[in-house]
Amino acid sequence: MAMMDVPLNSWLIFENAPKHAAGTEIVSQTGPDTLHRYTYADFGKRTQQLMHALDRLGLEPQDRVATLAWNGYRHLECYFAIPCTERVLHTLNLRLSPEDLTYIIGHADDRVILADPDLLPILEKIGEGLKSVKTVVVLGDSVPDHSLSTDVVAYEDLIADESESYPRPDIDEQTPLGICYTSGTTGRPKAAVYTHRSNYLHTIMASSGAGLSIGPSDCTLPIVPMFHANAWGIPFAATAVGAKQVFAGAHLDPKTVVDLLTNEAVTVSAGVPTIWMMVADELATRDTKPPALRHLVCGGSQPPRALMERYVNEFGIPFVQAWGMTETSPLASIAWPKHKMRDWSDEQLTDNVRTRAGLPVPGVEVTLRDESGNGVPWDGTSLGNLFVRGPFIIDSYLKGDGAEQFTEDGWFATGDVAIGDPDGYFVIADRTKDLIKSGGEWISSVDMEGAIMAMPGVDEAAVVAIPDEKWQERPLACVVVREGASVTVDDVKAHLEGRGWARWQLPDRVEIIEAIPKTGVGKFDKKVLRSQFG
Amino acid sequence: MAMMDVPLNSWLIFENAPKHAAGTEIVSQTGPDTLHRYTYADFGKRTQQLMHALDRLGLEPQDRVATLAWNGYRHLECYFAIPCTERVLHTLNLRLSPEDLTYIIGHADDRVILADPDLLPILEKIGEGLKSVKTVVVLGDSVPDHSLSTDVVAYEDLIADESESYPRPDIDEQTPLGICYTSGTTGRPKAAVYTHRSNYLHTIMASSGAGLSIGPSDCTLPIVPMFHANAWGIPFAATAVGAKQVFAGAHLDPKTVVDLLTNEAVTVSAGVPTIWMMVADELATRDTKPPALRHLVCGGSQPPRALMERYVNEFGIPFVQAWGMTETSPLASIAWPKHKMRDWSDEQLTDNVRTRAGLPVPGVEVTLRDESGNGVPWDGTSLGNLFVRGPFIIDSYLKGDGAEQFTEDGWFATGDVAIGDPDGYFVIADRTKDLIKSGGEWISSVDMEGAIMAMPGVDEAAVVAIPDEKWQERPLACVVVREGASVTVDDVKAHLEGRGWARWQLPDRVEIIEAIPKTGVGKFDKKVLRSQFG
Repeated sequence: MAMMDVPLNSWLIFENAPKHAAGTEIVSQTGPDTLHRYTYADFGKRTQQLMHALDRLGLEPQDRVATLAWNGYRHLECYFAIPCTERVLHTLNLRLSPEDLTYIIGHADDRVILADPDLLPILEKIGEGLKSVKTVVVLGDSVPDHSLSTDVVAYEDLIADESESYPRPDIDEQTPLGICYTSGTTGRPKAAVYTHRSNYLHTIMASSGAGLSIGPSDCTLPIVPMFHANAWGIPFAATAVGAKQVFAGAHLDPKTVVDLLTNEAVTVSAGVPTIWMMVADELATRDTKPPALRHLVCGGSQPPRALMERYVNEFGIPFVQAWGMTETSPLASIAWPKHKMRDWSDEQLTDNVRTRAGLPVPGVEVTLRDESGNGVPWDGTSLGNLFVRGPFIIDSYLKGDGAEQFTEDGWFATGDVAIGDPDGYFVIADRTKDLIKSGGEWISSVDMEGAIMAMPGVDEAAVVAIPDEKWQERPLACVVVREGASVTVDDVKAHLEGRGWARWQLPDRVEIIEAIPKTGVGKFDKKVLRSQFG
Repeated sequence: MAMMDVPLNSWLIFENAPKHAAGTEIVSQTGPDTLHRYTYADFGKRTQQLMHALDRLGLEPQDRVATLAWNGYRHLECYFAIPCTERVLHTLNLRLSPEDLTYIIGHADDRVILADPDLLPILEKIGEGLKSVKTVVVLGDSVPDHSLSTDVVAYEDLIADESESYPRPDIDEQTPLGICYTSGTTGRPKAAVYTHRSNYLHTIMASSGAGLSIGPSDCTLPIVPMFHANAWGIPFAATAVGAKQVFAGAHLDPKTVVDLLTNEAVTVSAGVPTIWMMVADELATRDTKPPALRHLVCGGSQPPRALMERYVNEFGIPFVQAWGMTETSPLASIAWPKHKMRDWSDEQLTDNVRTRAGLPVPGVEVTLRDESGNGVPWDGTSLGNLFVRGPFIIDSYLKGDGAEQFTEDGWFATGDVAIGDPDGYFVIADRTKDLIKSGGEWISSVDMEGAIMAMPGVDEAAVVAIPDEKWQERPLACVVVREGASVTVDDVKAHLEGRGWARWQLPDRVEIIEAIPKTGVGKFDKKVLRSQFG
């Protein structure tokens, strides 16, 4: 060996902050008006206490330990104590149905669940589905009344008497570290298994200037939940570099978010478009703007153009789009502008950068292919199926599920259709299955949704394909009209025509609806719309 | 496997930029008034042509291929073509003596040397020492007159007819990628061997917000040479993220450097204190300051406090100290301020952050130990021997040299003595061998040098230990007085006393000298001073 054989495991991410950022704060919203504050020194001690406590629960290496929790400091302790003792962190999505949770808990064979006290009713609904689970740990200092038949203990009791120092084991980097289930708008949820190595590589990449750009001077606030694709890796990256961390808990109302952004001097935050829309409305009412924000990252689905323009023009806050999937750890691309664009106008940047899913992050390669598997040119117009490859992208789902998404030559088929441009950015045109195939031509439902959501008076819009005898498929638009506004079917068609859409592309039907059904992670659930209107 | 088995090799760093930053520029100063400009698209094609050309030269996998070159685009092509074809990149330090170069070329068994035309005289002086070398490639479009007895070909002729596309081989990440020799102020130079894996990990770390912070919006100008510890990894990191790159070639005069910083809108630059001193004097004469600089990184030796104050106060340019060694790839720590310090005054930041070697970068662990191997407290005063560990730190030198620097429990002994503070930063107090042991107490030569260099009229100062019968060792200060200024021995002593130095710490002798002798990489050569005055 020429170089030290140091395995890329969680200890390498965990160990520095308690020593070199001992006095740096981790702040958690624990009630509507209450904050919990402590430091990395405290975090380091308590996390090592939890490591000992997990041993005492009789867990074996590689046993699955689940969390059912909001973003907060105890959840962060779980993020490290579980993998640092060679167990596998399984973050349960608290928005899934009891049926899906039952399936997932059984599929993963979870042995322990650490749950926030207000989320115990979810476990109570699962009931018999918890048969693999020996112990439920309530993330608090007492156990509320409950009807669970498993052992139930309070987190603070569990760790109280443990040593604050845990001897670092030698964990091979290929060891599984965590499991996340995809939300699955079709079929059963499937599980991505992260390894210590893949998580280390994703973590350092996430801190990169080509990733989320996080260093010791930063303060992060992930609005994206820790139960969804590890909050895009932000808690790991912030810990690795010793950044201040802020968590909003269950308090995702825009007032609380803006208070945290402002009072804690957050520098980097990340969330889905829906959150940033609500936050924008709240920001507009404030005299004092967040004082230190360097950039907001937006992912999960294509943000409306009007939203990015609002942040940039009205608030002067850089707004950066990112793209990824549970299967890609999840960050795969981020839309940073290039050095040559530093004198571009905001309009040019929005046209060519902010509206893109981004440039692939270091370590990730992307390719666009047609139906025959041939490369598609990056010319700004050609559509291609999007494939990705890299050391933090899965090469299989747990238990062999979804094998058809892995190509023989080593790529992961994302199920997205994208367009690449000559500057190297790509934009997601659609999910393969949401693309509308009308008379041999493709219509992008995502583009049409963006165009309709740019209309004044429109809150949300979802476009789905409806079977058609003559054209095979035709677009149908579902539109949510803002309270007090008036938008007619003809308005929508006229607006699209005015924005350059061709006659044949216009939706045959426009349905004005109350709300767009959403999946457990807040994405439009088009399956429901298709069955309702199809 | 849960995650794709993608090896961490140079291709993963190389491949994205020509595709996703195709139009981004690489700019090289090629003459006093001439610049060469091309794009990553050109770079990608030419580098792959060079890969084919190396094959045609009959090189085997793992053969050593050396460069003897200034910073520039052809050198960057070598940085990738050599490891991407499984050969080992050996960057020769052009400032070494012919004797050291002869030793190093033989020790590494170099088969090919790619050399800048103006550096051929160095090879001519080596003569017989080139017996392992089959071919010298002149980095230009023609071969100048020379007296070499090896084959000599012009780079542009060599690559001209080759294909611009090279099939990507499967390179195991543990394969050696490069060799750098330490400058060695004592004994023979020793070689650090970097692997594809260690270089990938260092590269992504270098782009981190906790590293040098480099993304697609950046433009880098490494003043530190590509023949010294891979220019601190900047060319690799900038390529990985598709940043614009600028190289100064042989033109390291402050006028050229400031012109490049300004005209090319450089955002991140890095160099040794001597360079930044000269650049500061030049900047002071300019009306137009560099428009886009985000930070200057300074390493190689402890920068004088007056220098950092000048950049911060006079030019408003963030000045960040970094520390590392050839053996640490080389970046091991960087002195970023923390979020909690955002309201600190410049004086507080200089006192507590800028004057520090920094916080360990992600992946690197540091520890301070006393002579018995016990941990030393991070209390801001205790001195300890500095040890480092991490996946891009060597665990041996080539051919087993210097085995005493590796501990049984897996740490590398840096040979530096450092002080840690409660905020987690450390400062290099001295090289172990440069520390002055006077009557059982230690005096830091680096601290005393810094204090003397803060005197008006002093250009440089070096402090060495002189053997003393009574006290074992006593300090001697060598001072270079600025032209036109007057500094006496008594002035130096009075200045030190006024800055809080104790009587017993003051140097017994102060020698006013013309210039401080330097090593091949520009560090003070205290070996020479000790033999001259000892």
